[in-house]
Amino acid sequence: MTADTFPTQAVIEKTHDLIRPYIHKTPVFTNQTINDLCGAELYFKCENFQKIGAFKARGGINAVLSLREEERTNGLTTHSSGNHAQAIAYAARQVGAKAYIVMPDNSPQVKINAVQGYGAEITFCQNTPEDREGTVQKIREQTGAAFIHPFNDYRVIAGQATAAKELLEQVEEKLDVLMSPVGGGGLLSGTALAAHYFSPGTRVIAGEPEGAADAILSFRSGQIERAPYVKTIADGLLTPLGDKTLAIIREYVQDILTVSDEEIVAAMQLLWERMKIVVEPSGAVPFAALLKNKQQFKGKKVGIILTGGNVDLGKLPF
Amino acid sequence: MTADTFPTQAVIEKTHDLIRPYIHKTPVFTNQTINDLCGAELYFKCENFQKIGAFKARGGINAVLSLREEERTNGLTTHSSGNHAQAIAYAARQVGAKAYIVMPDNSPQVKINAVQGYGAEITFCQNTPEDREGTVQKIREQTGAAFIHPFNDYRVIAGQATAAKELLEQVEEKLDVLMSPVGGGGLLSGTALAAHYFSPGTRVIAGEPEGAADAILSFRSGQIERAPYVKTIADGLLTPLGDKTLAIIREYVQDILTVSDEEIVAAMQLLWERMKIVVEPSGAVPFAALLKNKQQFKGKKVGIILTGGNVDLGKLPF
Repeated sequence: MTADTFPTQAVIEKTHDLIRPYIHKTPVFTNQTINDLCGAELYFKCENFQKIGAFKARGGINAVLSLREEERTNGLTTHSSGNHAQAIAYAARQVGAKAYIVMPDNSPQVKINAVQGYGAEITFCQNTPEDREGTVQKIREQTGAAFIHPFNDYRVIAGQATAAKELLEQVEEKLDVLMSPVGGGGLLSGTALAAHYFSPGTRVIAGEPEGAADAILSFRSGQIERAPYVKTIADGLLTPLGDKTLAIIREYVQDILTVSDEEIVAAMQLLWERMKIVVEPSGAVPFAALLKNKQQFKGKKVGIILTGGNVDLGKLPF
Repeated sequence: MTADTFPTQAVIEKTHDLIRPYIHKTPVFTNQTINDLCGAELYFKCENFQKIGAFKARGGINAVLSLREEERTNGLTTHSSGNHAQAIAYAARQVGAKAYIVMPDNSPQVKINAVQGYGAEITFCQNTPEDREGTVQKIREQTGAAFIHPFNDYRVIAGQATAAKELLEQVEEKLDVLMSPVGGGGLLSGTALAAHYFSPGTRVIAGEPEGAADAILSFRSGQIERAPYVKTIADGLLTPLGDKTLAIIREYVQDILTVSDEEIVAAMQLLWERMKIVVEPSGAVPFAALLKNKQQFKGKKVGIILTGGNVDLGKLPF
């Protein structure tokens, strides 16, 4: 992976034009109390209000629209217990293709319902990488469906990049910093590309849970590393990076800051209480990283992507 | 109370100009899934994003700004365990006046903190009308502070009317129906005046909890009635109407629909899950009334005021 293979500025601009009819231009929220508390000017990009309740709709629809007609005749498939499953189910319905979604049999009922609500066919599997990939493989052999990876795919990365591009367009003043969480790195690498092309000089800093701290290690070593342990409330950020996302992140991201689950929950609660919006734990991670490192952000204009709002209201951590 | 004493169209326009620098122009949200579910086109006015987290900031700041300088030299006082307390504390700080807020000693800590956060002085009392009013009376005698009633005051009503006025300006098409909850009737009477002046022909329909069903009785009889029983999760809607709010409601409101606590909680959960916003139980009441009476709203364009988002996240009903 070298920089000359990355999605270009023109590709991201074209992507945005392509997907615009299928996504929401989500609002940017500001909050005086939170600004006072942080001593910084924060601009929250509310992707929790995005179609399917998360930014993943952007990458999903772009990947699906980027396929040639004959590539999607046999349907689309992916494995995911979360927002990517909904994104592909949503995207498939938009283009009139069939979606075969592989979900772990312990997926929350609310997410199963949402995927079914978009008319997708669900195949359950055990929650191991082997069984997830094996089940997708079987579906591909049986149906000829096209596989769409949740993050290690330039079409997905270009789609996710439009969230930061839009945020940069919506905020009149130049941002000093752009923040996103990092799981597989699709959003973070897209955010980094958007900053590089559309706001050079804006630093890109990610937040990562201590209980899934693989990206910070990979960022340092240049290899795809595994997390020392995996246990966090931020269930959207469990996966390691891919080779494509790692290469972009190494090139254009300035720092990754880790936070504990206590810090994630406190940040999440502050967003709910003060901004009156529903944000999932993964979505509160970069804000938690800012709260933990206030000194570093003092006086700065900071854009933060609130990635999603899909939570089980019956199982809240407060 | 006759119609010639009601706040006029010019008064409401002037009020809006006066308070605009102190309030948020809150956004109007729409949601395709919810529209499909209801078979109607719903426009949600998000006053949960208002200053202090509720529409009460509008009436509070208008009442305070409407006082002559010498009338507020000795400070402002009111009694409230909820959003009106915060509204007056917020408004007092804006004009540099002292606020003396009387709060029942069983008020939630989160609301006590919020009122203190605006620099108000709190006096605790027992949660009876007598002790609340008696304590305010004592404060007025000691300090000469001006009393601002939470709803039965034309300045407050004119302030609350700006929420519906703004909503009517934000939605391009003509609304068939405007909905708000009803407690003391400040918001409902303001909403009714706004519809009458700025969108004649738009019907105004209120939602009221079964467990505080006084307004529907007063609406029918023309007298201020007491609720048969008072027990509801919608803790912002417990008070009976006042003579001023009743007169306006009798003149310009078309109907009041009652809902059970189960229906309120279900509507609230739907708003949180689908729209990703935090709405307090009282704020979900009109939407609950619509969900209960779908047939009546079929195919209609309906504006709904989501009144506030101040909830204790540790005590959610789901």
